[in-house]
Amino acid sequence: MRADRRLDDGIDLGHHGDRELGDGLADFAVNVRPGTPPAWLAEHIAAAMANLAAYPDPGRARRAVARRHGRRTEEVLLTAGAAEAFVLLARAVRPRRAVVVHPQFTEPEAALRAAGHRVERLLLEGDFTFDPARVPADADLVVIGNPTNPTSVLHPAAALTALARPGRTVVVDEAFMDCVPGEPESLAGAAVPGVVVLRSLTKTWGLAGLRAGYVLAEPPLIDALARAQPLWAVSTPALAAIEACCRPHALAEAEEWARRLAVERDRLAGELARRGLTPVPGARASFLCVHTPGAMELRERLRRRGFAVRRGDTFPGLGPDWLRIAVRDRAADDALLKALDDLLS
Amino acid sequence: MRADRRLDDGIDLGHHGDRELGDGLADFAVNVRPGTPPAWLAEHIAAAMANLAAYPDPGRARRAVARRHGRRTEEVLLTAGAAEAFVLLARAVRPRRAVVVHPQFTEPEAALRAAGHRVERLLLEGDFTFDPARVPADADLVVIGNPTNPTSVLHPAAALTALARPGRTVVVDEAFMDCVPGEPESLAGAAVPGVVVLRSLTKTWGLAGLRAGYVLAEPPLIDALARAQPLWAVSTPALAAIEACCRPHALAEAEEWARRLAVERDRLAGELARRGLTPVPGARASFLCVHTPGAMELRERLRRRGFAVRRGDTFPGLGPDWLRIAVRDRAADDALLKALDDLLS
Repeated sequence: MRADRRLDDGIDLGHHGDRELGDGLADFAVNVRPGTPPAWLAEHIAAAMANLAAYPDPGRARRAVARRHGRRTEEVLLTAGAAEAFVLLARAVRPRRAVVVHPQFTEPEAALRAAGHRVERLLLEGDFTFDPARVPADADLVVIGNPTNPTSVLHPAAALTALARPGRTVVVDEAFMDCVPGEPESLAGAAVPGVVVLRSLTKTWGLAGLRAGYVLAEPPLIDALARAQPLWAVSTPALAAIEACCRPHALAEAEEWARRLAVERDRLAGELARRGLTPVPGARASFLCVHTPGAMELRERLRRRGFAVRRGDTFPGLGPDWLRIAVRDRAADDALLKALDDLLS
Repeated sequence: MRADRRLDDGIDLGHHGDRELGDGLADFAVNVRPGTPPAWLAEHIAAAMANLAAYPDPGRARRAVARRHGRRTEEVLLTAGAAEAFVLLARAVRPRRAVVVHPQFTEPEAALRAAGHRVERLLLEGDFTFDPARVPADADLVVIGNPTNPTSVLHPAAALTALARPGRTVVVDEAFMDCVPGEPESLAGAAVPGVVVLRSLTKTWGLAGLRAGYVLAEPPLIDALARAQPLWAVSTPALAAIEACCRPHALAEAEEWARRLAVERDRLAGELARRGLTPVPGARASFLCVHTPGAMELRERLRRRGFAVRRGDTFPGLGPDWLRIAVRDRAADDALLKALDDLLS
């Protein structure tokens, strides 16, 4: 449905992991937590379906998000996924000089371009760590992911708060932050002036189909985003999910998953490295970004073996020698490793 | 959540019937078909919840809408309710002279203003019929509802197609068109150049909480709207609902309801008229727009009796002597009439 976003440089910003899936392929392309949504959450959402005839009322979910992050209600805007938040930001913020730190999720740049803004790319290289001094002093909009999709790198909170200054909006996409136990580098609760934090329920809770996310920012920006947002933008089942996922038992479940994920991710990283697929060091999210010569051909061969991994060439700053591989459970990951052994032997 | 839309003229375009509801009040304020969603539809939507972890794929629902209206797939954009469609139109169409025909649903004007456009109001009077000759020749965007919320007036299709001309976009909000048996004045299947038709599943199917609607227009405009739309804008359960509501048995159910609605609406209109609440003649939607001196006070007294009706003063072109009253089933309507008898005696 979404129109083509291919740019002059040939990179298709509209390519996402869901397009890599096919019937029967094991999914290492989309970064959704396996086995989600959990039964308790699915039941909670199903119960909300009993009230579909009424218009959505975001009040309770909004207050729940505020409590969960120690923010004021006026600092919260609920959105139909992080994707809507990017569009609202592109409409409400009118940057003179917008800088997007790449490689990262391509929707922020695509949304800014669709709204008619020029976008400069700041390409990270080497180990994809971020030096705030590389951002031009007069950039009045800076967009960065933390931890970053697709590199899985977690930037220190201090490197991001160092970007804040009067007249500049710093957008931190924390869609994968709940992969990080304890979230030590999150700015969701920090209320740093000029810093906007985006969160999503999509990955940890397996709700990509429901469209549920939120923005944390200062009240004047929240008001501006709300004015750009369609009425009743977040559906009743999505509101129910947001509220439920802010509860203590949900946060505990996510934290426990993040701890197990870290163990399996580090194991998979080691196994991939031994097979010549070199992960970006310091991965902290639910996927690994790996470098291997001939990655595009390897991806095709994996598809024929029944495994979908995400191509890296559609991410500005990566290229045809890169893949993004989701971390799944040990058995699923072992099946992928076995296929790699067969293909690479 | 939505920011205030009060204009200089004191009219709050952001006021909607859902705000008139309160615990225990009988709902004559929101125009959602009673007893919806039907069980078969609720079950269908619930089944779609099994696949929430995947990103939404609009393909099937989009094709179903195209088939239902005899349009090409490229002429269809699915949206998160008609409210999103108004925002997308306000973003994608850049009018030099935008004219909104009032009284009507206030969101189109609110969305245009939020996007920074000037809006002229063409106020219908008397019996609220529409003369296309009253639209300024150089208006390049015209927005009109059919049948119209809140007047319930159905305009002839010919009066709307007469508006079409090169360089002009005519937006027809058909959110209530499926209240009209056979839909003789619908332009959904007509593919008139420059005419954009908006439809919604909200009212007939009781899905206000799900956010499901669509736009029918020429492919270039559909493409432009899609570029302004967030990625994955319509949720998986909403897509399932759209597809299901396009099926023959759903259309037959809606048609049967529309026929029964017409009988009860005309009965209620007569009963209200006998009590000094004068309906706009020729009502064709699921509500009646009534004129009665002191309507605002009557509304307050009805609230205290447990009945919520919608105030008319927030619609440009109406005023404090107007109310919008939803048509419900005979028993519910009789209860309202009884309360009126008590209050007016």
